[in-house]
Amino acid sequence: MISAINSEIIPENWYNVIPDLPEPLPPPKDSKAEFSSINLLNKILPKEVLRQEFTFKRYEKIPDEVIEQYEQIGRPTPLIRAKNLEKYLDYGGKIFYKFEGATATGSHKINTAIAQAYYAKNEGVNGVTTETGAGQWGSATALAASLYKLPAQIFMVKVSFIQKPLRKIVMNLYNGNVVPSPSNLTEYGRKILSENPDHPGTLGIGISEAVEYALDHDYRYMVASVMNSALTHQSVIGLETKKQLELIGEHADVLIGCVGGGSNFGGFTFPFIPDHPDTEIIATTADEVPKFSKGDYKYDLMDSAGVLPEVRMYSLGADFVPPTIYAGGLRYHGASPSLSLLINKGRIKSDEVNQEEVKNAIRTFANTQGIIAAPESGHAIATMLNYVKAHKNEKKTIVVNVSGHGLLDLSIFQ
Amino acid sequence: MISAINSEIIPENWYNVIPDLPEPLPPPKDSKAEFSSINLLNKILPKEVLRQEFTFKRYEKIPDEVIEQYEQIGRPTPLIRAKNLEKYLDYGGKIFYKFEGATATGSHKINTAIAQAYYAKNEGVNGVTTETGAGQWGSATALAASLYKLPAQIFMVKVSFIQKPLRKIVMNLYNGNVVPSPSNLTEYGRKILSENPDHPGTLGIGISEAVEYALDHDYRYMVASVMNSALTHQSVIGLETKKQLELIGEHADVLIGCVGGGSNFGGFTFPFIPDHPDTEIIATTADEVPKFSKGDYKYDLMDSAGVLPEVRMYSLGADFVPPTIYAGGLRYHGASPSLSLLINKGRIKSDEVNQEEVKNAIRTFANTQGIIAAPESGHAIATMLNYVKAHKNEKKTIVVNVSGHGLLDLSIFQ
Repeated sequence: MISAINSEIIPENWYNVIPDLPEPLPPPKDSKAEFSSINLLNKILPKEVLRQEFTFKRYEKIPDEVIEQYEQIGRPTPLIRAKNLEKYLDYGGKIFYKFEGATATGSHKINTAIAQAYYAKNEGVNGVTTETGAGQWGSATALAASLYKLPAQIFMVKVSFIQKPLRKIVMNLYNGNVVPSPSNLTEYGRKILSENPDHPGTLGIGISEAVEYALDHDYRYMVASVMNSALTHQSVIGLETKKQLELIGEHADVLIGCVGGGSNFGGFTFPFIPDHPDTEIIATTADEVPKFSKGDYKYDLMDSAGVLPEVRMYSLGADFVPPTIYAGGLRYHGASPSLSLLINKGRIKSDEVNQEEVKNAIRTFANTQGIIAAPESGHAIATMLNYVKAHKNEKKTIVVNVSGHGLLDLSIFQ
Repeated sequence: MISAINSEIIPENWYNVIPDLPEPLPPPKDSKAEFSSINLLNKILPKEVLRQEFTFKRYEKIPDEVIEQYEQIGRPTPLIRAKNLEKYLDYGGKIFYKFEGATATGSHKINTAIAQAYYAKNEGVNGVTTETGAGQWGSATALAASLYKLPAQIFMVKVSFIQKPLRKIVMNLYNGNVVPSPSNLTEYGRKILSENPDHPGTLGIGISEAVEYALDHDYRYMVASVMNSALTHQSVIGLETKKQLELIGEHADVLIGCVGGGSNFGGFTFPFIPDHPDTEIIATTADEVPKFSKGDYKYDLMDSAGVLPEVRMYSLGADFVPPTIYAGGLRYHGASPSLSLLINKGRIKSDEVNQEEVKNAIRTFANTQGIIAAPESGHAIATMLNYVKAHKNEKKTIVVNVSGHGLLDLSIFQ
């Protein structure tokens, strides 16, 4: 994109919601007496990421080298008025969508991956490592590492590794080393394989393997979502959206996004919290993962393996296993602590949609706007369509975050 | 995108190169005494498309309704300086890429599809129809028709229909009706099926079926490439690029694109012809389809079925069957008459690259810039990489057109 225009839209600082929460955020805590997860974070996260995790500062300067890479991978992403959809719905209000699918890796994940890889590189480590389920986060990690010339070791849940060979190709094109997890690269993986060579893998096992690999190889662990630093980096989405709306003289009455761990949602909506008290904010989850309506607001494990700390959040239980749904990214049992607090205090509302609504929403969005949304983003679009139906005569300005494209998920329509 | 910025970059007029060619363009002619292909065009093309096909006017106003849809599907597309690639190549010059993969359908094809569907709609016809091989053109046709609420009947070469089920899903999401060709929807298809029920289909058969369907149902036939009207519509690519370069004070020393029928290439480069006499322009084809180096500059059939007229162009023969290559879009035997003339007169140079160079080019572009280019576009990138190596110390400003993304073609790396 044109640099002159970019420089007006990409923010200079990320936004951290912590100081603007209605009450202090309950801190993370260790779940076991014999092992400190919080000490572990000191060893596996880049120092700067760890600092950002616990800071009360409202703004964090985005390093110039990160802004440069944001521009390289397609930021600012477009904010488009969905005029065809407005006509199709015969809606007198306005519908805008922010399209994170326009980034090089096709989703918002790259926004925090670039930041974390940059800080890791700066600290002179040997590489970065992470786990990935469907592969979106692995792709973002692989590209971000490649941009800063760091090796990336990615542990991909074995069943996804087999079912989604295209994602593996993408990670390889980005110079990422990908192995099915459990793998023989770690002691933990080898132990599981010796007990069951056909173990299909889980995200929890992947996290444990990545953490062990980081400790053994002086790599740093990359955090996909849930943790506050990731949400801070993702604030680039909402800050751009605010600026883009401002440039065309629009005010968001309603913001809608989907929630897996909460990073695209928090990144998109939190920058509106301090100065848009009247803006309605809606978080969509899948019917099958009803964390806000059926989950408890309590301290719970972030990961089923218990490697990472406990946090206070809405949770269906760390061992919750949802039915298979199209949107792999929405299967997480909990939601970021800051988002959970804002839901608990009533500042943010929640909604749940079912798989049929999601498929129909993706269809409608595709044949009016041309964009084939990711199944995760399809949830936000479904909520938006329902909202328009329910508020037909109110002429609101609705902004929905389409967190990714669905071009590697087309098989759900087969 | 932001309308205020869009409106500066999307042009008001398309550019038609015909009046600026170094000598008059040899006109199309009928190939058979018993049947006039040129008369046929009168019946199957929208009147306005036919007028544009034969006009000598340098500029054609883009209808407001077309500009509105250009904005809806992601225009203007980004022009990005490939800084990571420059560093990787240790190049002292500048490399920019125009990214047509950022449109909703993922390639430049939508630019002319929207125009043709608009004119068809305006003339009150029942629908539009076309043939498609790999499915890019079919996707663009389906979406364009959907945007103007027209039915689309797409004949997809049967072997591709079977091999590329994801493309069919895309067309369906865009409301397109897709059948494998030969089909039982036309007399011609039924005749072929009765002789050989397992016929794998060809583009020629698809064209014949679409033309018959158009005549029988008062549909209009959509032209993917080669014909001048399609190149005129595609000039939106080059006009945007010129404007984007102008806004940042840059001048293109070298333009590089890939050639199938010539529409992305002509659209990208022709707008530079009248006022950039010093700009070097390079057209890349596949080694396996050496139309410019081994083809003859002669009158030849546009399609193997002989339905469309003969034109004077570089051609390997209408019955030329190239070996299977990654880039289905570059298998065409000829090239647009205006491009052929400019090559013949030496204004535009040509280059050929092989499949290994293309795969390596896509890899290098992916792990430096994050974009996974279509195999077709990978040819242009390969030429660009070779050009930089050969002109290492010249500090040129090179602009390459990345005509589409390769997310539905990842299997070439399997």
